[in-house]
Amino acid sequence: MTHSIQDVLQRIGIPGQPSAVGIGTTWQAGAGEVLTGKSPIDGETLVTLQEATLGDVGLVVDTAKNAFLKWRQVPAPQRGEFVRLIGEALREHKADLAAIVSWEAGKITQEALGEVQEMIDICDFAVGLSRQLYGYTIASERPGHRLMEQWHPLGPIGVISAFNFPVAVWAWNSMLAFVCGDSVIWKPSEKTPLCAIACQQIVNNVAQDFPEVPDGISNLLIGRAEIGKALTEHQEIPLISATGSIPMGRAVAKTVAGRLGRSLLELGGNNAMIVTESADLEMTVRSALFSAVGTCGQRCTTLRRLIVHETLADQLLDSLKNAYQRLPIGNPLSAGTLVGPLVDQAALDAMQDALRTAESQGGTVHYGNPILEDVPAGGCYVHPAIVEMHSQTEIVQQETFAPILYVMRYRTLEEAFEMHNQVPQGLSSAIMTNDIREAELFISPVGSDCGIANVNVGPSGAEIGGAFGGEKETGGGRESGSDSWKAYMRRTTNTINYSTELPLAQGIEFNL
Amino acid sequence: MTHSIQDVLQRIGIPGQPSAVGIGTTWQAGAGEVLTGKSPIDGETLVTLQEATLGDVGLVVDTAKNAFLKWRQVPAPQRGEFVRLIGEALREHKADLAAIVSWEAGKITQEALGEVQEMIDICDFAVGLSRQLYGYTIASERPGHRLMEQWHPLGPIGVISAFNFPVAVWAWNSMLAFVCGDSVIWKPSEKTPLCAIACQQIVNNVAQDFPEVPDGISNLLIGRAEIGKALTEHQEIPLISATGSIPMGRAVAKTVAGRLGRSLLELGGNNAMIVTESADLEMTVRSALFSAVGTCGQRCTTLRRLIVHETLADQLLDSLKNAYQRLPIGNPLSAGTLVGPLVDQAALDAMQDALRTAESQGGTVHYGNPILEDVPAGGCYVHPAIVEMHSQTEIVQQETFAPILYVMRYRTLEEAFEMHNQVPQGLSSAIMTNDIREAELFISPVGSDCGIANVNVGPSGAEIGGAFGGEKETGGGRESGSDSWKAYMRRTTNTINYSTELPLAQGIEFNL
Amino acid sequence: MTHSIQDVLQRIGIPGQPSAVGIGTTWQAGAGEVLTGKSPIDGETLVTLQEATLGDVGLVVDTAKNAFLKWRQVPAPQRGEFVRLIGEALREHKADLAAIVSWEAGKITQEALGEVQEMIDICDFAVGLSRQLYGYTIASERPGHRLMEQWHPLGPIGVISAFNFPVAVWAWNSMLAFVCGDSVIWKPSEKTPLCAIACQQIVNNVAQDFPEVPDGISNLLIGRAEIGKALTEHQEIPLISATGSIPMGRAVAKTVAGRLGRSLLELGGNNAMIVTESADLEMTVRSALFSAVGTCGQRCTTLRRLIVHETLADQLLDSLKNAYQRLPIGNPLSAGTLVGPLVDQAALDAMQDALRTAESQGGTVHYGNPILEDVPAGGCYVHPAIVEMHSQTEIVQQETFAPILYVMRYRTLEEAFEMHNQVPQGLSSAIMTNDIREAELFISPVGSDCGIANVNVGPSGAEIGGAFGGEKETGGGRESGSDSWKAYMRRTTNTINYSTELPLAQGIEFNL
Amino acid sequence: MTHSIQDVLQRIGIPGQPSAVGIGTTWQAGAGEVLTGKSPIDGETLVTLQEATLGDVGLVVDTAKNAFLKWRQVPAPQRGEFVRLIGEALREHKADLAAIVSWEAGKITQEALGEVQEMIDICDFAVGLSRQLYGYTIASERPGHRLMEQWHPLGPIGVISAFNFPVAVWAWNSMLAFVCGDSVIWKPSEKTPLCAIACQQIVNNVAQDFPEVPDGISNLLIGRAEIGKALTEHQEIPLISATGSIPMGRAVAKTVAGRLGRSLLELGGNNAMIVTESADLEMTVRSALFSAVGTCGQRCTTLRRLIVHETLADQLLDSLKNAYQRLPIGNPLSAGTLVGPLVDQAALDAMQDALRTAESQGGTVHYGNPILEDVPAGGCYVHPAIVEMHSQTEIVQQETFAPILYVMRYRTLEEAFEMHNQVPQGLSSAIMTNDIREAELFISPVGSDCGIANVNVGPSGAEIGGAFGGEKETGGGRESGSDSWKAYMRRTTNTINYSTELPLAQGIEFNL
Repeated sequence: MTHSIQDVLQRIGIPGQPSAVGIGTTWQAGAGEVLTGKSPIDGETLVTLQEATLGDVGLVVDTAKNAFLKWRQVPAPQRGEFVRLIGEALREHKADLAAIVSWEAGKITQEALGEVQEMIDICDFAVGLSRQLYGYTIASERPGHRLMEQWHPLGPIGVISAFNFPVAVWAWNSMLAFVCGDSVIWKPSEKTPLCAIACQQIVNNVAQDFPEVPDGISNLLIGRAEIGKALTEHQEIPLISATGSIPMGRAVAKTVAGRLGRSLLELGGNNAMIVTESADLEMTVRSALFSAVGTCGQRCTTLRRLIVHETLADQLLDSLKNAYQRLPIGNPLSAGTLVGPLVDQAALDAMQDALRTAESQGGTVHYGNPILEDVPAGGCYVHPAIVEMHSQTEIVQQETFAPILYVMRYRTLEEAFEMHNQVPQGLSSAIMTNDIREAELFISPVGSDCGIANVNVGPSGAEIGGAFGGEKETGGGRESGSDSWKAYMRRTTNTINYSTELPLAQGIEFNL
Repeated sequence: MTHSIQDVLQRIGIPGQPSAVGIGTTWQAGAGEVLTGKSPIDGETLVTLQEATLGDVGLVVDTAKNAFLKWRQVPAPQRGEFVRLIGEALREHKADLAAIVSWEAGKITQEALGEVQEMIDICDFAVGLSRQLYGYTIASERPGHRLMEQWHPLGPIGVISAFNFPVAVWAWNSMLAFVCGDSVIWKPSEKTPLCAIACQQIVNNVAQDFPEVPDGISNLLIGRAEIGKALTEHQEIPLISATGSIPMGRAVAKTVAGRLGRSLLELGGNNAMIVTESADLEMTVRSALFSAVGTCGQRCTTLRRLIVHETLADQLLDSLKNAYQRLPIGNPLSAGTLVGPLVDQAALDAMQDALRTAESQGGTVHYGNPILEDVPAGGCYVHPAIVEMHSQTEIVQQETFAPILYVMRYRTLEEAFEMHNQVPQGLSSAIMTNDIREAELFISPVGSDCGIANVNVGPSGAEIGGAFGGEKETGGGRESGSDSWKAYMRRTTNTINYSTELPLAQGIEFNL
Repeated sequence: MTHSIQDVLQRIGIPGQPSAVGIGTTWQAGAGEVLTGKSPIDGETLVTLQEATLGDVGLVVDTAKNAFLKWRQVPAPQRGEFVRLIGEALREHKADLAAIVSWEAGKITQEALGEVQEMIDICDFAVGLSRQLYGYTIASERPGHRLMEQWHPLGPIGVISAFNFPVAVWAWNSMLAFVCGDSVIWKPSEKTPLCAIACQQIVNNVAQDFPEVPDGISNLLIGRAEIGKALTEHQEIPLISATGSIPMGRAVAKTVAGRLGRSLLELGGNNAMIVTESADLEMTVRSALFSAVGTCGQRCTTLRRLIVHETLADQLLDSLKNAYQRLPIGNPLSAGTLVGPLVDQAALDAMQDALRTAESQGGTVHYGNPILEDVPAGGCYVHPAIVEMHSQTEIVQQETFAPILYVMRYRTLEEAFEMHNQVPQGLSSAIMTNDIREAELFISPVGSDCGIANVNVGPSGAEIGGAFGGEKETGGGRESGSDSWKAYMRRTTNTINYSTELPLAQGIEFNL
Repeated sequence: MTHSIQDVLQRIGIPGQPSAVGIGTTWQAGAGEVLTGKSPIDGETLVTLQEATLGDVGLVVDTAKNAFLKWRQVPAPQRGEFVRLIGEALREHKADLAAIVSWEAGKITQEALGEVQEMIDICDFAVGLSRQLYGYTIASERPGHRLMEQWHPLGPIGVISAFNFPVAVWAWNSMLAFVCGDSVIWKPSEKTPLCAIACQQIVNNVAQDFPEVPDGISNLLIGRAEIGKALTEHQEIPLISATGSIPMGRAVAKTVAGRLGRSLLELGGNNAMIVTESADLEMTVRSALFSAVGTCGQRCTTLRRLIVHETLADQLLDSLKNAYQRLPIGNPLSAGTLVGPLVDQAALDAMQDALRTAESQGGTVHYGNPILEDVPAGGCYVHPAIVEMHSQTEIVQQETFAPILYVMRYRTLEEAFEMHNQVPQGLSSAIMTNDIREAELFISPVGSDCGIANVNVGPSGAEIGGAFGGEKETGGGRESGSDSWKAYMRRTTNTINYSTELPLAQGIEFNL
């Protein structure tokens, strides 16, 4: 660890050497192999720690379960106050946490700050929820009866998250879970251990001064995939919220289904933007650019497919190529950089493979090359790629987690919609148009089949007020705003008979 | 088929010999083995037909998919009008349909009529929904932006249902699905083919006079488990709604999860009633009686466990035994009968096995014997059983689909709650008490862990206005009222930028 | 009464000579002056009856109050079943009721049928509501406490309605009121007594076969303004729902406010349509035409102001004038007629006065003249008018209840919005545009200040699924869809303490 | 002003001599008469200032209107961030603000702190709302049409508040109004000018560092009733929210209705508690005590009527008298004091008059005498009174704003409910019972007719999560939680036609 890392960790209050296992406020080294956390910026070692093992899972789940049993009895507005204070702590440590995000995930500072802001936003939102968590009172068909539903705390929630949103996704889940009366067990990406440790510590800091919070509300297990697997199999964890690849999600879903648990899945996207004849081209370029190259193409909502009306495809391509040409690529911590590194060599290899495949399937590749000069040594930097495709070949229908923007042409809107929905993923989507009919059709039942469908806004960069998630192979989960909190609770439907009679529903007579 | 069956089928409009495959309004014989539908009342053959085979699945799914693609464009209130007319048709055929239910499922007439009433109720409810299907408009954080969510039709829905609610469960699913813009493919229980054929025909009758309804909205496949399996595996069916046993549900859940589809599961229950010291004993007996012996103990919400405060257990047992003694058991079509037959010999055997096991685990069995006299020959009639248990042994924690009521005693409310939640199932529950603290605790986060928790109402016989379903191994699905309709739709979150600026969420700056 | 009227009344079941006072199912002649109901079609006498007097009010209110006290205890879904049957009766008598509407209000048959359809629609919607009437269960800040809100029946509702929607407005109010557990006292327009009598009788017919309905749920008082005034003053009527002119509404509002009752006001509109450069002109003409001349300009949502971008004003005016030229005006019962008569001579005089005033304020009037030939004698027929105005002079800012369409020109959208919002009324509005920015701005906080703001749909002809009503001098009430039903109920917020402690909200300590 | 007052004001940032007129962040002396603010604790002068005059109203309304026109365009979540920071400032100044509340309103410190806590709570709640403000998206009956409703900012809101909640009521209104995009003009009670000035200054402090907040969002006018009257008459103020006496509310309601504006009224209560045979007596005494003597009986929700089952009336009376005997009465700033002073001599006189009247109407008065010794000179201290009444005579049916608890006896629950609902006010109510039937009946349609109906919680001391307000002469308004925020916005119903057809609602055909 460099000095600056140590300073940041110290400011957050992480005691001494970071540990892989957080059981409530207790830190504990794992008994597993040594994990060496390296920065994608320059390959420097950020931290080494011993990973959690399967042996840690039982204790952590027990702790989380016991904490849950107490926490569920703490009134929700008090739980909200706890989350409010976490939000305050996040505001205080915003720059520190963003720095860790940049170091471990390679995000540029603006995006890292944005990610922490998203944590703060969800805290605010969750605080408001803590005096709502509305069920319905419902008109009963029987005299002297009352019907209602209540939402009750669910249990310890397993959160499995990915490297690309190493702190926000946890916050989306945990802040809602906390307010809903649940405890959390977090299995973060092994690529971002310090992010996880910092978040856990921030919660610990707040919890220690909040007597109503039972120890064990928030728990951390940094380790291999086997840890995640053990969580998905565990009967005491009613909900697994997993963010990551489609194969990972599929495995989680099957395992959890096998024990009749619940999954909340946020898997891959293959997000497209349709650009119609009436689109504002300047806005389109800016919007596509951020959506395609932000986080170096490693957002689940990254723009991967551009479906452009044939009349303006050439012009738009020119503008885009020009913009790509001028992209400031390099150290994400440097002011002005817009594109940082890929997360690792495997990502770079996968990108290059995809580009070669695209070429073999008839594509014309612009840029996309690894960058070796004027960037920090030891990092995997690439020039984001534009690939012109005559049609959506097999490679286009896959999600390659790298900055590759496939560009296709269309003639009629129907054709564009068909192309749009042709892929198996269903996360995010956008249309650029000034025509209200085109816009409304896109967000209508016959338009985009995605969970997110935007107009004149790129597919990437959602506000926390809406429900976030997607359809088809994206997994169907919804996190963040709207009524997503319901996933973290159990519903109970209550009929109360306060009469002295016993009428049956549907008018059935049953008298002995 | 007897004359009266033929009369009923003719009144409903079923053309000639009933068929196993309904592709929209087209009836078609299956190519499978011959299914002989027999009545649990007397073992008489009700119908013979050739079952659907795997070869039918593809065409049916294609038909349903194509119908869906049109149906989703029909405005929801028109879809509601279609459902309203189905409701009218159900009112018209209420007695006929109830008769078929009695013949095939063995229900007493009152309960069969009640089941059809439930279909009618859900139609009325769905009609109202057809002008709602509310999403939210949501405050956006960006100037010149608008945020909202819409609920869109989902696709062809697979409905797998069980013999014990051979028509209502289909209606719960289908009426919501229709209003939501979906088509339906129904795999009913092989034990109740005529019920399914009658429902399908009633929909056909309405559809034929309703030009906006594309043919193929409603589809039927009567056949073996392999048909259900094929549906669960089919990529074009985004939602499988399955009602039945826990092992069946587990299998469905895993298969659907493997393709990242959605399951709506309504599986087994092991429903209990806690009777506290302050309970109204007379009301308790009546309530327990209907809940325990209604549908001969073959409801998912059947009362299976009675957890009684020790001070009044003897008195309550006496009253119950006295009531059980006097139960009119026999032909469910006869006026006055309260307990009809079990569905088949296997059910009877399972019941007898369970009673023997209970005895071996320390239980004292009252009644429970097969009845051979004064009942129709050829049916499996039993005297519902009361079994006193010193504790909740293994057999008590299982769901035996027969009228066995285990009776246990408790001292403190905490103990009662612990016993209550000790079983793996989590469907329905009740407390009988006049004490508001006891009642409220039972429906609070620390009380019943079931999806349904009632006060002074038995666990069985829900109104359609509330969400119906359960937690834990019951599978987590919710059908019927409240916002259960959301399972049949996909949510799309829309951000519309109507400004000439392109601000990013979370205040990120990203300018080239 | 002609034979055909007698036939219609007989089919509906109105016994003998129609009466002015309906006290539940009892008809009774009023003791007031003789009211002669004449048809605006030809001035023929439709009915004569003796009006209600102040002396009738007390008994009617008592009856309605007593009926309410019972009705509120009937479960809402049963109340919904009552409304469902009213819907069925309306379907049965759709043509009959439409004929009466045409005779008394002068509507063309299509619009009269549409009005009855609206009644049917609100019945369907209300039936769905009858299993909802949702309040919230809410997270409480205190341990062992539960917080919720319930919506309870309110009391006898006074409904004051106008001639131009002589049946639908009553149905909007009454069907929601019935489902909400309220009784209704109706003071209709004196111009449409038979409409009112027919509606009351249809309810009576249903009520007589529905034993749960206490007599006195629906009541009718046909009489002078003093009857309405007496209702607004009556302490036992918690809600007055009044539709009509702004001066009438103002008087109602003040009187009801003086006794701290509630008003639901649907008053005048001065509805505009903005036509931007990108508008679909053909659609604009059709949309403006229906909105401006439908019901002969006597809808509250009638289009009265057309605010057209200067670049296409001439073309649009030409098209409109051409369309107006060809309007089929005459007997509303004749097939093909699109414009029937004004309601009476006063309306015709007011229209002519307004046209003269408009001219004196610089307007150019096209058409607008009374029509004397080829129309039924005895009716007040006019050619709908188009008036070009250089600006929105005083007369343009008033609502003249006749088919006058003022046309103004604008340059910038800001200017158009300013003109749009310049009038004191705030009911309905529309923009015709294919530009999404223009459309979204119009429905944004800085756009239309009306309760209804449409895009590419005229201001007239709302669906019942949305909340209907307006802002500013339109009075602020909302009827029909969304959560409008809340106006007909009272909310109760309940905190239940089921603990043995007594914590105070906001953490106050108060221990003796 | 004493030193300690000056210190507090300085800490809050009030510049120099407090002023009566706050126009946004600008303070300005009024041109009216001199107002001398005295403390009810000891009659000491707290502040002198020149009151606002009618001449100030116009400028303030213009300022508020202009600020509104900008503020409504600031995205709601940013408005929420502003309110969040106000919440932070309130946390910082909690003790200071509570001290001012005690000085000016005479509240004991615990209750003053509780009042500030309520302000903080509503801030948190409003922050959450700022990403909600949910309208509905709604299923449309027409193909190619979309239906939705949005809630838009309303305009400058007039807030008229009373002395007894000198800061919380303003916060309830203002924090929701701010989040909803409105500006506020506050006319506080003349008895609590420093409270108002402190609140206004705290908002100013936050606004000055928040560039998106236009100056003029929050405005203050301290002056006579004529100021309030001018606000209620002002056409540019769409909503007047008024808290106070019934005659005041009636006047406000009439004036606002006359201009077709909206009122939100929180007027008097005459709150009762029913104590049934099964009640927990110890809890009843504690609950009644706080509800009856808290804020020296000067809460709108103060318990004024105790309706006790005859079998336990004597015992309860004894316990209550014993508790009253031991009440620590005196300086509200002293630790341990539970009862502070009445607000002024008029309140004391009214109380004594009421007690004499009660005696003349057959009542037996316990305590109730003015206290002259061992209390600060210059304050109006009284011993709270218990008055046994044989029935609810005229005086019992009035609200006397002082600590008088009338005690009546009942035999049957029906009788108790009748007595309960016999008064013209309808704010808050409670039942003390352990019987679930009694409890549920009380909160059912046939029970309490109040806006608040509690079980085993006194009528006073609501959480902010529920809607607060009452029925009948209490005025019908709802503030604080649930969907109360809707009162501060205007609803717009939008139909968007994105098809190329123009179908009419209700299936009307209208083709030229």
